[in-house]
Amino acid sequence: MRIALKIAYDGTKFFGFQRQKDVKTVEGEIIRTLQKLGIIEDPKRSNFKGASRTDRGVSAFGNVVAFDTENPKLATPRILNHHLRDIWVLGIAQVPEDFHPRYAAKEKVYRYYLVDEGFDLEAMERCARLFLGTHNFSNFAKLEEFKNPVRTVKEISITQKNGLIMMEFVGESFLWEMVRRIANALKLCALGLLSEEEIRDMLELKSDKKVPPAPPENLVLWEIRYPNASFELDEYSIEKAKREFFERFSAAVIKASIFRDWLDAL
Amino acid sequence: MRIALKIAYDGTKFFGFQRQKDVKTVEGEIIRTLQKLGIIEDPKRSNFKGASRTDRGVSAFGNVVAFDTENPKLATPRILNHHLRDIWVLGIAQVPEDFHPRYAAKEKVYRYYLVDEGFDLEAMERCARLFLGTHNFSNFAKLEEFKNPVRTVKEISITQKNGLIMMEFVGESFLWEMVRRIANALKLCALGLLSEEEIRDMLELKSDKKVPPAPPENLVLWEIRYPNASFELDEYSIEKAKREFFERFSAAVIKASIFRDWLDAL
Repeated sequence: MRIALKIAYDGTKFFGFQRQKDVKTVEGEIIRTLQKLGIIEDPKRSNFKGASRTDRGVSAFGNVVAFDTENPKLATPRILNHHLRDIWVLGIAQVPEDFHPRYAAKEKVYRYYLVDEGFDLEAMERCARLFLGTHNFSNFAKLEEFKNPVRTVKEISITQKNGLIMMEFVGESFLWEMVRRIANALKLCALGLLSEEEIRDMLELKSDKKVPPAPPENLVLWEIRYPNASFELDEYSIEKAKREFFERFSAAVIKASIFRDWLDAL
Repeated sequence: MRIALKIAYDGTKFFGFQRQKDVKTVEGEIIRTLQKLGIIEDPKRSNFKGASRTDRGVSAFGNVVAFDTENPKLATPRILNHHLRDIWVLGIAQVPEDFHPRYAAKEKVYRYYLVDEGFDLEAMERCARLFLGTHNFSNFAKLEEFKNPVRTVKEISITQKNGLIMMEFVGESFLWEMVRRIANALKLCALGLLSEEEIRDMLELKSDKKVPPAPPENLVLWEIRYPNASFELDEYSIEKAKREFFERFSAAVIKASIFRDWLDAL
């Protein structure tokens, strides 16, 4: 039986997604837990695959992993969440034998958060529109050999909430660091440090100027959309995750308030 | 020459203030840095003293340490801050040879932060007034042998800001866990779970009920007041600390926003 899990994680607690020797990674922790519970023996033999190898520091609300198991009884969100730390299983689905969470994905949604430094949001919106559609994103990505640099950005929406700016990006797939580099370009636009013309030139490869990536801690892989996926989650796991998210929210709000007071006092 | 330093630190990054073997503590890091720079050789010989041994998790904006040195040239906030992480030297003063930062203190100020869960602030204010003045705080402290449990609370102020409640406590000195236990009592009052009468009984030792301490991460040792201290800080160190406090503030605000979105989405 092949199972897919929808997982959330706090990226600041890991050395990235991909398993590595001697450091705590998201994939490493998930595999270790599945092995400990006897759900899989070996990631290779169980054809363990992740949808997105998010960079160090990047969080996810809806990354997806899949694996074969002959022992699916213990592979429930409730049991897995009991053993995982800083990772939450937020859905489970039985999938076809040939399901690969990366190649089966129809769309990916990313969210990038910025503290509002007095941005020109109209300029940001105008620049955002330039990225929509199909372009060669070579100047907005860390290029990998043999990868097609042409991608399609379907939607970019910018919303203001709680003194923050949140940008949401929807596309079929993105190049390495592409979301963070576009996010940085939009921030530079909003500060008047990058013009629409410069972006147009970079997208048309008339300029070889590159935009560096914005910090990873502000990025969340929000959702991966599949044509026929229906992830399920039990009530108990929802309530437990909600309590834990509220605790993390509270701790962060208090830390923000402490440092704001320190800033005001200096 | 004896020198006193006013120091801030993020308590979530340390195993408490007091030096311990094999774990990162505030005092341990400061001593290590002073030794590395040749400012002191040995904490005992240089009569190194801290004002307040804050518990694990507790932060400070204004704790104070003092030590003798024959090499005061490198003991500047600018140089020390270059070497310290998660600790900031926010003031320096030359002090008398017999200066002990704990016994010389005239008053201490603590701040406790709470996420507003729909508190009854009037009830909180009424309960706060009961703690003012001189009482036997045995039921609101972790008692230590040979310590006088009678203390004087001079002021408690409660303010609401940014959706949070901040309580400020001023007193000559406080018992172990006393601020966190009073903070918890006030929170329980504000939720209707503890009455004024119960608090009065506990303060008059008519009840041996004890209130457990509220979490340490929400507590900041805000200030220690001395009769004649005048800590100085150079412009460069102020600007550097401001930048770093803003970075920490931003990271926390973004983390809060991420977890709030996760909470809303479940």
